[in-house]
Amino acid sequence: MHTPLPIRSSNFSAWYNELVVRADLAENAPVRGCMIIKPYGYAIWEKLQNILDKAFKETGHVNGYFPLLIPKSFLSREASHVEGFAKECAVVTHYRLKIAENGRDIVVDPAAQLEEELIVRPTSEAIIWSTYKNWIQSYRDLPILLNQWCNVVRWEMRPRLFLRTTEFLWQEGHTAHATQTEAEAEALQMLHLYEGIIRDYIAIPVIKGIKTAHERFAGAEMTYTIEVLLQDGKALQLGTSHYLGQRFAKAFDVTFTNQAGLREYVWGTSWGITTRLMGALIMMHSDDDGLVLPPKIAPIQVVIIPIYKTEAERSLVVAQMSLLQAVLITKGISVKLDDRDTRKPGYKFAEYEQKGVPIRIVLGPTDLQNKTVELARRDTKEKITIAMDGLVEQVMGWLEEIQENLYRRALALQQQHTLFVEDYTTFKTLMAGKGGFLFAHWDGTTATEEKIKAETKATIRCIPLDGEEERGSCIYSGKPSKRRVVFARAY
Amino acid sequence: MHTPLPIRSSNFSAWYNELVVRADLAENAPVRGCMIIKPYGYAIWEKLQNILDKAFKETGHVNGYFPLLIPKSFLSREASHVEGFAKECAVVTHYRLKIAENGRDIVVDPAAQLEEELIVRPTSEAIIWSTYKNWIQSYRDLPILLNQWCNVVRWEMRPRLFLRTTEFLWQEGHTAHATQTEAEAEALQMLHLYEGIIRDYIAIPVIKGIKTAHERFAGAEMTYTIEVLLQDGKALQLGTSHYLGQRFAKAFDVTFTNQAGLREYVWGTSWGITTRLMGALIMMHSDDDGLVLPPKIAPIQVVIIPIYKTEAERSLVVAQMSLLQAVLITKGISVKLDDRDTRKPGYKFAEYEQKGVPIRIVLGPTDLQNKTVELARRDTKEKITIAMDGLVEQVMGWLEEIQENLYRRALALQQQHTLFVEDYTTFKTLMAGKGGFLFAHWDGTTATEEKIKAETKATIRCIPLDGEEERGSCIYSGKPSKRRVVFARAY
Repeated sequence: MHTPLPIRSSNFSAWYNELVVRADLAENAPVRGCMIIKPYGYAIWEKLQNILDKAFKETGHVNGYFPLLIPKSFLSREASHVEGFAKECAVVTHYRLKIAENGRDIVVDPAAQLEEELIVRPTSEAIIWSTYKNWIQSYRDLPILLNQWCNVVRWEMRPRLFLRTTEFLWQEGHTAHATQTEAEAEALQMLHLYEGIIRDYIAIPVIKGIKTAHERFAGAEMTYTIEVLLQDGKALQLGTSHYLGQRFAKAFDVTFTNQAGLREYVWGTSWGITTRLMGALIMMHSDDDGLVLPPKIAPIQVVIIPIYKTEAERSLVVAQMSLLQAVLITKGISVKLDDRDTRKPGYKFAEYEQKGVPIRIVLGPTDLQNKTVELARRDTKEKITIAMDGLVEQVMGWLEEIQENLYRRALALQQQHTLFVEDYTTFKTLMAGKGGFLFAHWDGTTATEEKIKAETKATIRCIPLDGEEERGSCIYSGKPSKRRVVFARAY
Repeated sequence: MHTPLPIRSSNFSAWYNELVVRADLAENAPVRGCMIIKPYGYAIWEKLQNILDKAFKETGHVNGYFPLLIPKSFLSREASHVEGFAKECAVVTHYRLKIAENGRDIVVDPAAQLEEELIVRPTSEAIIWSTYKNWIQSYRDLPILLNQWCNVVRWEMRPRLFLRTTEFLWQEGHTAHATQTEAEAEALQMLHLYEGIIRDYIAIPVIKGIKTAHERFAGAEMTYTIEVLLQDGKALQLGTSHYLGQRFAKAFDVTFTNQAGLREYVWGTSWGITTRLMGALIMMHSDDDGLVLPPKIAPIQVVIIPIYKTEAERSLVVAQMSLLQAVLITKGISVKLDDRDTRKPGYKFAEYEQKGVPIRIVLGPTDLQNKTVELARRDTKEKITIAMDGLVEQVMGWLEEIQENLYRRALALQQQHTLFVEDYTTFKTLMAGKGGFLFAHWDGTTATEEKIKAETKATIRCIPLDGEEERGSCIYSGKPSKRRVVFARAY
């Protein structure tokens, strides 16, 4: 179990794949492209869910649930929407199995073919806007601020645990508004909300921006995105928030009577964040020894491991540790005491290191005599021995420091690999090498965007929201440009 | 919106269907048999989820997530399992849509047919036990105490909101153990856990028992069940806990090395509770005016409604109400202040009555002068006016009383309709009339069970756990019987 991981610098991809499995986060399912999220991985996802859900509710959103199966014709109502998703839809065509004529095999019952095929939802705009038509008559029924937590399926040809899976878990917000201004504000609000949580809890700095028309969500007027730069110089899109304008309202004929008594189409947004967040978290902070978790989202913040030889020593050490555990728990710290006697301490050290537990406490008979404990930090590998009565303070201080240190490290990495590039030769060299966020001028055309992608594998991650106007010329075409966009090779 | 509901006594079924929609809990989806859970209904489900999830964790269980899509061959590994579920499986056969040759229609792409069909999970034993094979080698890896919250699909020919839907939400626990004793104890533990929560939070008394072989879960050695009797004299199965023995371990070849160093098959359980719980809750407590909610699971425990004529009055009344709201919130009570000026008080009264909010507080200009408030209870319709400074005490007292009263009422109903029956004529008369839980002797054969069902529509709900041995003879065949079983017509 605890053989070393591949080294990041020599094979980042193998390192990631191995780490996800070894840290007990997830594994590949028997169905290609699908994953099994193991309890330790799921516990992190639950923490993220709780944090997000609380923030959604504080901003006035409520949860609901819409069906998994969507009639094919619904998906087709918004033209660019179906175009965007048609290529990756799982299709239900039958509703029954039966025993084959050989009396043994189980086969699809041809008599149970559906009149209209059902699509396993790749996203729920179609089914939700078809419902909003019945829910909305007047401005009094607006806004609708709805969210749902669920699974979606998008058939994936090059799957990767957490980053890209055929089935993934997510939340999808779908809001309906009486005015364009309100819908635009909602889409931006959710983008900022995502950014704040990713920064404050997952210790990841991001760039916020607008997707180009080419990269926009299928059915949106405008897609806002949050982009993160990972240790290998590649970017990952972490969350998107779409201003839908009146497109889905028009596709599903959703109108309302405004305060002036006139019929108008409803304005919409949608926004979502997925289990991909887990991938970012892992790739951002972890090292060659395994996972490194920010304390605020670690299911276990502190692990306590006893050292003993005799059974008598064991009971003394474990009794003292239970006391320490109880004290830490009263401070709101989540502590695991691992007193299994089927595993040696060294095995446990390696296990919790691989699982990224922020702080390890070790206690042995000598410590009992000296009234000391040994503490180790997962992020810096620092190890200290302190007096037992300073434990709570030390642990609380370290938890805070680790959280800050991980953010600082991630920010330094992002800054180090964020470069302003003025010419295409440098651009190509950088993209072929260390990658990074390259801020460059672009002429605004999809043609140029596609050519750059074909030649360098880099895509425009976004037009940054914080960017300033600046005259320049496109690195590819030389045509005039008013602002820089962010390029990167991405997952 | 607030036209009266159908009357329970004349059409229970219509009353239920209307109530679910009017109380804003759920509605039928465009896909036949599927439902949309509306925010108010989902808020109740979230409360139930939180209560259950906490209890699962306190008993050592952890959450994980397994894929939605299951290869057909996996389902077939356990013979009675596939036989039980084959008739209601949604089958995914293709993974892509495309634009038809007419350039307009969206059709299934015949080139994207799956080699092996995938089943949308009707339950997850197959996929989970196929995984446990890799997770379990030694007794050290046991027990596994895993739960997952998810959606499942079982094709439903006679759907009913919450009670029977093609897609429903649930939790499914899947545990693996080193000994038969431990697995049996786990299955029973979860049954008792369900009973306690249903009694203490949903205010519903239940009968616990064992399903007959005929009604047993497809793949279990023994199925424990919780059965509730509803207002119309019909029974509803609310939760089941299965002792699987070694059946899935054998089907998926899951073995472990025990402490003696010998290879053995693993012992298993599974247990689940679904959104059907919402149906029981509604049918158990509600009345002709709408939903009645037990305070412990009410998303809104108290609603405050202002009465005013002028704008000046409005601001005074609302200010005072905000104060009252704040005070109640500090006591942990969930309070909604409905100060919408687009709706009249009468409309609001009817709305919250239909939505089952346990306590309504009304405040008008006269109350301000007299320092009083008017309170109304949803369950008994009692209305009182009290001094404002006694409000907190009164509300807290009432919340407790309402919770108890609902349980008492439900228990009285169940007792009133629980009868010991000695002969088949009386049995038939009762089943054709008021129904109820009928305790009767049965000869233990499936043949008799099926004949009684065919003639009276009554099924054996369970062999009660609390039942005592008692010699008797089967009401149908006259053959000897050692204990009574519980018959009822059921949803």
